[in-house]
Amino acid sequence: MAHHIFTPSAFYQTLGAHPAALTIKHGDTVITATLDANGFDQNNVLQAADPNPMSGPFFIEGAEPGDTLAVEILKITMTRPTGWTRQGLAWHVVPAADVRTLPPREKIFWDIAPRQNSITLQNPPPELKNWSIPIVPMIGCFGVAPDSGEAISTATCGHHGGNMDYRRFGEGATAYFPIAVPGALFFLGDVHGAQGDGEIAGTGIETSAEVTFTVRLIKGKPITWPRGEDETSIFTVGNARPLELALQYATAEMLAWLESEYGLGKIAASHFLGMNVRYDIGNVFNPAFAVACRIEKAALQALK
Amino acid sequence: MAHHIFTPSAFYQTLGAHPAALTIKHGDTVITATLDANGFDQNNVLQAADPNPMSGPFFIEGAEPGDTLAVEILKITMTRPTGWTRQGLAWHVVPAADVRTLPPREKIFWDIAPRQNSITLQNPPPELKNWSIPIVPMIGCFGVAPDSGEAISTATCGHHGGNMDYRRFGEGATAYFPIAVPGALFFLGDVHGAQGDGEIAGTGIETSAEVTFTVRLIKGKPITWPRGEDETSIFTVGNARPLELALQYATAEMLAWLESEYGLGKIAASHFLGMNVRYDIGNVFNPAFAVACRIEKAALQALK
Amino acid sequence: MAHHIFTPSAFYQTLGAHPAALTIKHGDTVITATLDANGFDQNNVLQAADPNPMSGPFFIEGAEPGDTLAVEILKITMTRPTGWTRQGLAWHVVPAADVRTLPPREKIFWDIAPRQNSITLQNPPPELKNWSIPIVPMIGCFGVAPDSGEAISTATCGHHGGNMDYRRFGEGATAYFPIAVPGALFFLGDVHGAQGDGEIAGTGIETSAEVTFTVRLIKGKPITWPRGEDETSIFTVGNARPLELALQYATAEMLAWLESEYGLGKIAASHFLGMNVRYDIGNVFNPAFAVACRIEKAALQALK
Amino acid sequence: MAHHIFTPSAFYQTLGAHPAALTIKHGDTVITATLDANGFDQNNVLQAADPNPMSGPFFIEGAEPGDTLAVEILKITMTRPTGWTRQGLAWHVVPAADVRTLPPREKIFWDIAPRQNSITLQNPPPELKNWSIPIVPMIGCFGVAPDSGEAISTATCGHHGGNMDYRRFGEGATAYFPIAVPGALFFLGDVHGAQGDGEIAGTGIETSAEVTFTVRLIKGKPITWPRGEDETSIFTVGNARPLELALQYATAEMLAWLESEYGLGKIAASHFLGMNVRYDIGNVFNPAFAVACRIEKAALQALK
Repeated sequence: MAHHIFTPSAFYQTLGAHPAALTIKHGDTVITATLDANGFDQNNVLQAADPNPMSGPFFIEGAEPGDTLAVEILKITMTRPTGWTRQGLAWHVVPAADVRTLPPREKIFWDIAPRQNSITLQNPPPELKNWSIPIVPMIGCFGVAPDSGEAISTATCGHHGGNMDYRRFGEGATAYFPIAVPGALFFLGDVHGAQGDGEIAGTGIETSAEVTFTVRLIKGKPITWPRGEDETSIFTVGNARPLELALQYATAEMLAWLESEYGLGKIAASHFLGMNVRYDIGNVFNPAFAVACRIEKAALQALK
Repeated sequence: MAHHIFTPSAFYQTLGAHPAALTIKHGDTVITATLDANGFDQNNVLQAADPNPMSGPFFIEGAEPGDTLAVEILKITMTRPTGWTRQGLAWHVVPAADVRTLPPREKIFWDIAPRQNSITLQNPPPELKNWSIPIVPMIGCFGVAPDSGEAISTATCGHHGGNMDYRRFGEGATAYFPIAVPGALFFLGDVHGAQGDGEIAGTGIETSAEVTFTVRLIKGKPITWPRGEDETSIFTVGNARPLELALQYATAEMLAWLESEYGLGKIAASHFLGMNVRYDIGNVFNPAFAVACRIEKAALQALK
Repeated sequence: MAHHIFTPSAFYQTLGAHPAALTIKHGDTVITATLDANGFDQNNVLQAADPNPMSGPFFIEGAEPGDTLAVEILKITMTRPTGWTRQGLAWHVVPAADVRTLPPREKIFWDIAPRQNSITLQNPPPELKNWSIPIVPMIGCFGVAPDSGEAISTATCGHHGGNMDYRRFGEGATAYFPIAVPGALFFLGDVHGAQGDGEIAGTGIETSAEVTFTVRLIKGKPITWPRGEDETSIFTVGNARPLELALQYATAEMLAWLESEYGLGKIAASHFLGMNVRYDIGNVFNPAFAVACRIEKAALQALK
Repeated sequence: MAHHIFTPSAFYQTLGAHPAALTIKHGDTVITATLDANGFDQNNVLQAADPNPMSGPFFIEGAEPGDTLAVEILKITMTRPTGWTRQGLAWHVVPAADVRTLPPREKIFWDIAPRQNSITLQNPPPELKNWSIPIVPMIGCFGVAPDSGEAISTATCGHHGGNMDYRRFGEGATAYFPIAVPGALFFLGDVHGAQGDGEIAGTGIETSAEVTFTVRLIKGKPITWPRGEDETSIFTVGNARPLELALQYATAEMLAWLESEYGLGKIAASHFLGMNVRYDIGNVFNPAFAVACRIEKAALQALK
């Protein structure tokens, strides 16, 4: 159960079978730095090309295809007093007829004040002069090397995780990824200081960060899509376009989870889901969208 | 501010310009009965054909196209000790390749016990023998007569509301509908005793009910899509297929709301939404899907 | 087998159970005038509100729900030397990021010259100074009253037909509609002088016309979606959003056709369709899109 | 203008920056063998894993990112007297409610007889006993290495081409690909003996083949999506889900083509496309769908 402090020197714009940056073991904890989505570090110095340059990959000893990698996000620390977004909403999220009414997509800067736990616009329009939001950090893009020899852009997401931009992947959450290559090859980056559902601005508060995480290896229990768990919920994440397909994948993964871990047959699982399911839209911006199928732990209690 | 106790004698399977069943005024409160989605009443007697036979329409004096109708749902009372669902999930909500693995869509009955505030399966599979859910009633289908002379099936939803099956339209919520014909012609029915997101079983707990509501007329403030408000949130509902389009309509309606009522310009509204928006999937089952764009009132406080 | 010359005096913006304008019989032929999509007649005089005001409805004696109405389009004559389109493409048909690059949607006028069989822009941009297209007339919107008491806007389409904007519904084609109400109640209008696939300009060459058609009643052979037939092909039309769903409906209807009329079991039909199917996109502009599943008659010959 | 006869010894399941198998020049012609989609060669011997193992890559001297690769398909020869399909239609192409009615997806074998120019089922159902189809060969999967360091599965398609399964990529056609890496790295495989639109059986007639092609390098004229040309048409191919997005990409690419090569401004291009566009559905089966935006050369003549 070693603790590693890892300073990345290479960054990747794809999740694929890149050379391992560090070899770690089940139970190990890693502290590492991440660049922002455009490749800027804690000093606002450009270190890598966009999109979403990844730290890693971390090779987990003994990980084999068919295993599952659990990543507990212990801590996400802001390492820079600024972040940025794009002004205006993504064109995707308004009807085609309204696209012409949206403001241009300029880069906008925000101040991040960890002591005040606040994020504020640097040059707010007058209506937002007194407006601030709390820091609720999350990992925008993380996951493992995909199967079939693919190397998949960090702009998008899939079975392997990737750019899901789902706000529940924050401090205290555990993410589960299907391992497709020996060593799993775990990557992470693209931390957001805060973000609403759907990443409808096309960004969260994009910034550099330091992430502390612990890995666990779950042998011989394959999963198909990323899963997660936080204090209040368990969830599965389907990554695809359109939203329907992402929702279908997430739902099928939750059905599988309810069957294998909670002992529900398909009929029981259907009754249970029909009354308890919650859907979150992780992102509706990237090439693949992310939809989470979520069950509150309180509802699971009622099964016992 | 009259109180009306209204016993419906005709039921409609479309929202359209049907003859007014009762004329009411701004501020009036109505108590009325609703049939279940298949047309069964509080005695489990078939009173009307499916889908979703409506009580009403209520003609609101002085309502004109361009006005907005506010309907506050004061109370939803279960009037029958049973409800039903369909077994298995809707085919739409799993990947096409998994459809063959789902159980058949048989009608399943549940016991509704208001005193215990619980709903339980009549013949549960063994895994669910001790499982119950609380009663959290909601209105599945309600709205006003549409514009353009249309009469739209209660199976689906649109600008006029209709079969949105969104669980936040429950007790204490206020729904807002765009008035398209003189008198508004408000209809309601299809109450559910409980339901998860997306109505992915194709049903909630379908049952008869008694609904108490108050109407208010908002003159000269047109809206485009249904809106709503409950204790914690304001929300807009886009009704369309696919989910993307429903989400776009809901988002555009929320942008309009933030501009007209909260004084935010488009740039400010985009910043605000990007960090605060929540999306709920009302239904992903009906011919048109419903997606809600929601803002928590706590987030709105930060604007002041 | 009467010939009727019918001059419409009322026009409808919905397909629904409106009063019959003329009662006709199996085998009868009707010649009638149609207004353009905005309601202008052969003299360019506004006669009815848009969208797509319909001539009719024609009550077909003996037609009952479950029967099929066949409408053979014998002739479509241009009755006005001008037509119009909207400049630029529909926002729907380019990626969201490109919407801002498209020209505004102004109304543009064209000259229609039946003797020269040509349509030309009245004020062409220089690049199109010598450009003309042939007149290939088609009916944009036609169909029957829908079931369930619905009255559906002529802006959209469904099981009942309606605003399909499919260019193969032209001279010589026969359209088949599922009859949902006694008398069928057939409506027509919205003739286009020409149109590409998908109605991606949001219009064809919109103009007034005179249409000659013969109706036949096919008793006791229900269909689910509109079908059609021209010199070279048979086709089915699915009307829905998104395109996938429209394609699915059309494909299922063609499977049914191959089974009932061509004696193919599901396996044989699948082999046959897999190698021979053609898909056309009727419209990708209206609230519901139209996709045609088409089989060339030459391919059907190979079955015999 | 060399002629190369190339016998592949390595096969790839991704299009990516794999080691060049052969270096060729602008104007060179190559004859090479391709395996079937499951990796079987002309002797029905398994040579590589599925999906769609690729021959190549061919390194084109002087090719740089921003250039365009033209591949003229001179000849496609069947090298095996058999091919296979999957029985039944893909689940995607019927409504969810009909999926349970489709036959299972067993592997089915066909005889390919080049002299008779016919393809026939080996064990036809009785209804198809006399049925045959002509050989109309096409390349299912071909393209170049993608940009951004991605290696993309041959199961899907994108900017780089890949598994488009569009039947117009047959003998006599020229395909154009956007070059993203030095040398372009051209791959090909997955030949079909015949196929309908949409690849709705999930396969064409899958078989091994010998393909003869000539490459040309178009310097300094970037394109964004694959384009093509055959005797009668020019076309662009958008690869994405859902169909709407694929259609949008293809339409935008055709707009760009009409502007850059045919001198049409956006307004003129819109008028022209609105009246002349044809859409083909290449595949509606793979992870990304392919939609072609097509213009008949006869319509282009009218521009001159």
